[in-house]
Amino acid sequence: MGVTRVFHVGLGPIGVAIARQIATRPGVRSIAAVDTDPLKGGRDLGELAGLEKRLGVSVRDNLSDAVRKARPDIAVVCTSSSLEGVMADLETLLAFRIPVVSTTEELAYPWRSHPRHARRLDTLARKARVPVLATGVNPGFVMDALPIMLTAACEHVDRITVLRVQDAGMRRLPFQHKVGVGLTPAAFARQVTAGSIRHIGFRQSMAMIADACGWRLDRVTDEVAPQLATETIHGEHLSVAPGHVCGIVQEAVGYRSGEPIVRLRLEAYLGAPETYDSIEIEGIPRLTMTLAGGLHGDIATASIVVNSIPHVLAAAPGLRTMRDLVLPSYFTGRRR
Amino acid sequence: MGVTRVFHVGLGPIGVAIARQIATRPGVRSIAAVDTDPLKGGRDLGELAGLEKRLGVSVRDNLSDAVRKARPDIAVVCTSSSLEGVMADLETLLAFRIPVVSTTEELAYPWRSHPRHARRLDTLARKARVPVLATGVNPGFVMDALPIMLTAACEHVDRITVLRVQDAGMRRLPFQHKVGVGLTPAAFARQVTAGSIRHIGFRQSMAMIADACGWRLDRVTDEVAPQLATETIHGEHLSVAPGHVCGIVQEAVGYRSGEPIVRLRLEAYLGAPETYDSIEIEGIPRLTMTLAGGLHGDIATASIVVNSIPHVLAAAPGLRTMRDLVLPSYFTGRRR
Repeated sequence: MGVTRVFHVGLGPIGVAIARQIATRPGVRSIAAVDTDPLKGGRDLGELAGLEKRLGVSVRDNLSDAVRKARPDIAVVCTSSSLEGVMADLETLLAFRIPVVSTTEELAYPWRSHPRHARRLDTLARKARVPVLATGVNPGFVMDALPIMLTAACEHVDRITVLRVQDAGMRRLPFQHKVGVGLTPAAFARQVTAGSIRHIGFRQSMAMIADACGWRLDRVTDEVAPQLATETIHGEHLSVAPGHVCGIVQEAVGYRSGEPIVRLRLEAYLGAPETYDSIEIEGIPRLTMTLAGGLHGDIATASIVVNSIPHVLAAAPGLRTMRDLVLPSYFTGRRR
Repeated sequence: MGVTRVFHVGLGPIGVAIARQIATRPGVRSIAAVDTDPLKGGRDLGELAGLEKRLGVSVRDNLSDAVRKARPDIAVVCTSSSLEGVMADLETLLAFRIPVVSTTEELAYPWRSHPRHARRLDTLARKARVPVLATGVNPGFVMDALPIMLTAACEHVDRITVLRVQDAGMRRLPFQHKVGVGLTPAAFARQVTAGSIRHIGFRQSMAMIADACGWRLDRVTDEVAPQLATETIHGEHLSVAPGHVCGIVQEAVGYRSGEPIVRLRLEAYLGAPETYDSIEIEGIPRLTMTLAGGLHGDIATASIVVNSIPHVLAAAPGLRTMRDLVLPSYFTGRRR
């Protein structure tokens, strides 16, 4: 098997993290990249990704031109959390019959939240005879695929609870902004209303779990609240006065026959006493899993995307999800 | 989709646990059963499984006759840990083009340990156009599929350690005998030599992990030692005098380029202070997963087998492993 030629679409923090990983992995090579940011255009991908070597890949701004010229084996799309926001690019890539792996949160399991878009992409991908997958740490792994995997050991499942607690102080500044660190409660509320403060993906994870278990949910809530500092917090990037926002608490609950059956909760704030992910399956048997230290969002998402590449290339054509693919796995070098 | 008609081959503790689960699940039904034990022949499967209702399935002793008459959708084979020991039954089932899911430990990943048998079964299954899978909690889940799944979140993996610690006092008497509870150290050593005390599956789990990660192992060790009681232990079924065996410590190590890269360790003894499973992935990032209380061997194995049924039926023909199948999952009722 030859080297898989990877085309990067979108070079934000995750996009360049993926490029950095690809530079160190055997069997994959970055061969082209596009980003709409004029400050990135014309720069070398290696330089932009903070690698010590140039990759000889100059960042372009026109997707069609770049894909026509590059003829990649797969495109990695990291431009937007919004499915609406990536449709045009996905349609272009599928017109060129390029398999896609993306970090677009709403694309991770769009069958319930965006059924029309999902059907359209599935049809286009089948016509193009290539697979499309979105994945990442969340959605795509820790709040859906991993709890689903654990339920396989159960004779009966009554309720699933996934909790992620993160000290936002360990994350980059844009992440801290994304969870509202330093805002007044009023400003936080406005940003929640505007949609700029909210983890995207709970509805997709919820639907993936429910469909895997064969549960019909009659209602899903997804609520965001601020975590307020009770004393002054001095972070590396930001400090927070008492009464101001130090982060986010977001919880989604899925109800079946009026009873809560899936609960997904994210607490990400400056000064969280401990960082961990936990999954609790209430059932027979009861399972309690903990990942000490949690899965680091950026590293894990970039890793899951890169590790998915061989599985996506081997997948059946159409819109795929982490439920349809074979067991996720790290890979290096020779495989059987 | 209609009801999946299940044929039981082998009605030991796991075989009947599977029958009990099938009796409670929508979408699956036990329609025939065989066991070579004359004490079981002619009895009703429901009665044998300890269910309160009869299932109208009389236990037969002749596999060929039973399968010819029953025409099942899938066979569940729980007769032996040994691949050699199930070959004849598997060949019969494949001659009738019946998909198979089995708990045979050596069949869970036989490509390295039994390549000739693996190729033969794969050929027969492809000819019959049906899939064959062996799975269970271990091998099949906690020491292979689950750590493999976790590595997907890693950019790099240096070493994988899986540790299962079990208080054998929580398990049934045959399990306690299997781990040597109550033996003298000399009797334990003889039974290890005779092969009757040893967890089977470490080599298969090791090979599954190595192949998933693309590692070539140059050496695999698999050693059994007794755990000795330091004081008198009074268990529910057995008691152990100081200096006698209260259980087993078994460890397998896989070496790559002379360095240990995978370590699988099982400690199962009366009076173990805590029961848990842990997975440690050393790499970028480092992951530490703990399942408090561990996965209960019998319940988890029966559950994983039953939960695999829809995935096996949807799998490509041939000899499959947990690496090839879509994401494992509990299921009930309606699915999409």
